[in-house]
Amino acid sequence: MSLEMQGIGSTGGNGPLIDGLQYANWSEKIFRQMREGGVDAVHVTITYHENFRETVLNIERWNRWFEQYPDLIMQGRTADDIVLARETGRTAIFFGSQNPSCMEDDIGLVEVLHTLGLRFMQLTYNNQSLLATGCYEKLDNGITRMGREVIAEMNRVGLVIDMSHSAERSTLEAIELSTRPIAITHANPASWHPAGRNKSDAVLQALGASGGMLGFSVYPHHLEHGSACTLQSYCDMICRTADLMGIEQIGIGTDLCQDQPDSVVEWMRVGRWTKSVDFGEGSAAAPGFPDMPEWFSDNRHFDNIASGLKSAGMNETNIAAVMGGNWQRFFASSFAAL
Amino acid sequence: MSLEMQGIGSTGGNGPLIDGLQYANWSEKIFRQMREGGVDAVHVTITYHENFRETVLNIERWNRWFEQYPDLIMQGRTADDIVLARETGRTAIFFGSQNPSCMEDDIGLVEVLHTLGLRFMQLTYNNQSLLATGCYEKLDNGITRMGREVIAEMNRVGLVIDMSHSAERSTLEAIELSTRPIAITHANPASWHPAGRNKSDAVLQALGASGGMLGFSVYPHHLEHGSACTLQSYCDMICRTADLMGIEQIGIGTDLCQDQPDSVVEWMRVGRWTKSVDFGEGSAAAPGFPDMPEWFSDNRHFDNIASGLKSAGMNETNIAAVMGGNWQRFFASSFAAL
Repeated sequence: MSLEMQGIGSTGGNGPLIDGLQYANWSEKIFRQMREGGVDAVHVTITYHENFRETVLNIERWNRWFEQYPDLIMQGRTADDIVLARETGRTAIFFGSQNPSCMEDDIGLVEVLHTLGLRFMQLTYNNQSLLATGCYEKLDNGITRMGREVIAEMNRVGLVIDMSHSAERSTLEAIELSTRPIAITHANPASWHPAGRNKSDAVLQALGASGGMLGFSVYPHHLEHGSACTLQSYCDMICRTADLMGIEQIGIGTDLCQDQPDSVVEWMRVGRWTKSVDFGEGSAAAPGFPDMPEWFSDNRHFDNIASGLKSAGMNETNIAAVMGGNWQRFFASSFAAL
Repeated sequence: MSLEMQGIGSTGGNGPLIDGLQYANWSEKIFRQMREGGVDAVHVTITYHENFRETVLNIERWNRWFEQYPDLIMQGRTADDIVLARETGRTAIFFGSQNPSCMEDDIGLVEVLHTLGLRFMQLTYNNQSLLATGCYEKLDNGITRMGREVIAEMNRVGLVIDMSHSAERSTLEAIELSTRPIAITHANPASWHPAGRNKSDAVLQALGASGGMLGFSVYPHHLEHGSACTLQSYCDMICRTADLMGIEQIGIGTDLCQDQPDSVVEWMRVGRWTKSVDFGEGSAAAPGFPDMPEWFSDNRHFDNIASGLKSAGMNETNIAAVMGGNWQRFFASSFAAL
């Protein structure tokens, strides 16, 4: 199968193939797999707990990759860059942060980070932040005083609010307070798999009604039966969520953490906030990255999801919307300053 | 009156004179006023919203002052340094932070800051922090996951938890979670003056019962009738609070912000968390520093408070305890590693 055919197959037509979140141990191998899988754009996590200066170092590393692999990848800043990427046979890389650590306690860094290319920022990562409450805190008092200010500033400059790792009340308040639609780039409905990271129907309905986007995660801790989750169960869940939120409000956000050593998941969970070990979604018995389901282990397998959606009864137009069309429309309306 | 007599007068005997908090625009003039007033030790704020590196810059500035005025001031690291300061006619300066900004999101910086001399750190300053909730947030969900870890680390190294600007629930939980007594270095009872920054009787009773310390503020926004507060009202309040908390659990924490331009109070209130103006305890009509009460405008006026306590019926032993003896005992048990 040619690369082009593969890409067309994955989106069920001529639409773009876009992944709403990945955090791989990036390499030429993975960039080539993206091309092989026909992936047109990816929102990549460039930083977890890194402060501003450390985040800039991570951007420098991306700049070197863009310079080194100009035939495979390019930086994405606007939705038009997805069009350019497709025309030139490359994958557009859009930067995001999983935690507001990169802006430290400085609202002025919101605009600076946007200028440097940041397009998504989570208001929390599991724990309480200066802005909102994370999904693993016992209590959630919603968006803080600073959080309200930062949401307004993110709205102004075109930096998308991502509430994937946030707690219920904070997420509902972010949807309410934000004047622009927000995203949950990588999570699934808790009604399908009741993990702390998955989202209630109330959150998903509010997200959909506000024009926001949900990216369906393939990370095993977010899946029914974990790594053993079937493609059918996953695709049936997507179809049900389309009914709940609206077909235009959903996409894929695999949370693919390919080729990462387990030291990275420890950094993701522990950062610098504790001297103890926190296992997050894992456990002492299984502290590392879980195995991916057999139907999705890297960027070459999006066509499995597209096929699964077809088997689940979704039509070609809707499959194309879910596999990338919706994210492209969302990118087009989200990244410019007001 | 000789300087020595003044010092003796202020503490009602031979005890030390210690102020639990000041944030002046430091100068040789103020250091000389400290000596004139017989002030043996002061917990000084060296940082509000500054990050670690900026806090180190502030320490560098203090190092230059220590080098420049060795006959007036010295750095205090242990309670023994108060004895040394008294023997050599100097004021011992103990460092503190009003916000955990200086430790950023890095628990490892707790020990580093202690090594650099930090002896007090507030878990919050008005707003939600990574550790706890500040007194101006609408809701308070108590000590966060990271907050619990940081409290244990502060306990371990001997960095005192200060909850002066924290909200009710967070303060009660900090008292409960900390294995060492904590401090509220500068506040007054809300039952006397119901400001958001003042503390409920429930908090003060729990603080006293746990062996913690309250420093009575002279900052006008914390005083009954503000700048017009009478010395008698202030000293009667101290006597009542002694009954509530125990005579050994109270001291002075003036919150003296001498010679500061109003730009500094704006930095204290706004930091980098908003692009708007936040007036904190002030208002649009009175945005700047308020006038100090006529009976306390600088370090030469502690004897007024000691005299006021005598007029309020407090005996010499207890006056000496309030004017510094209690802080000295608290410093002696708080600053060493466990």
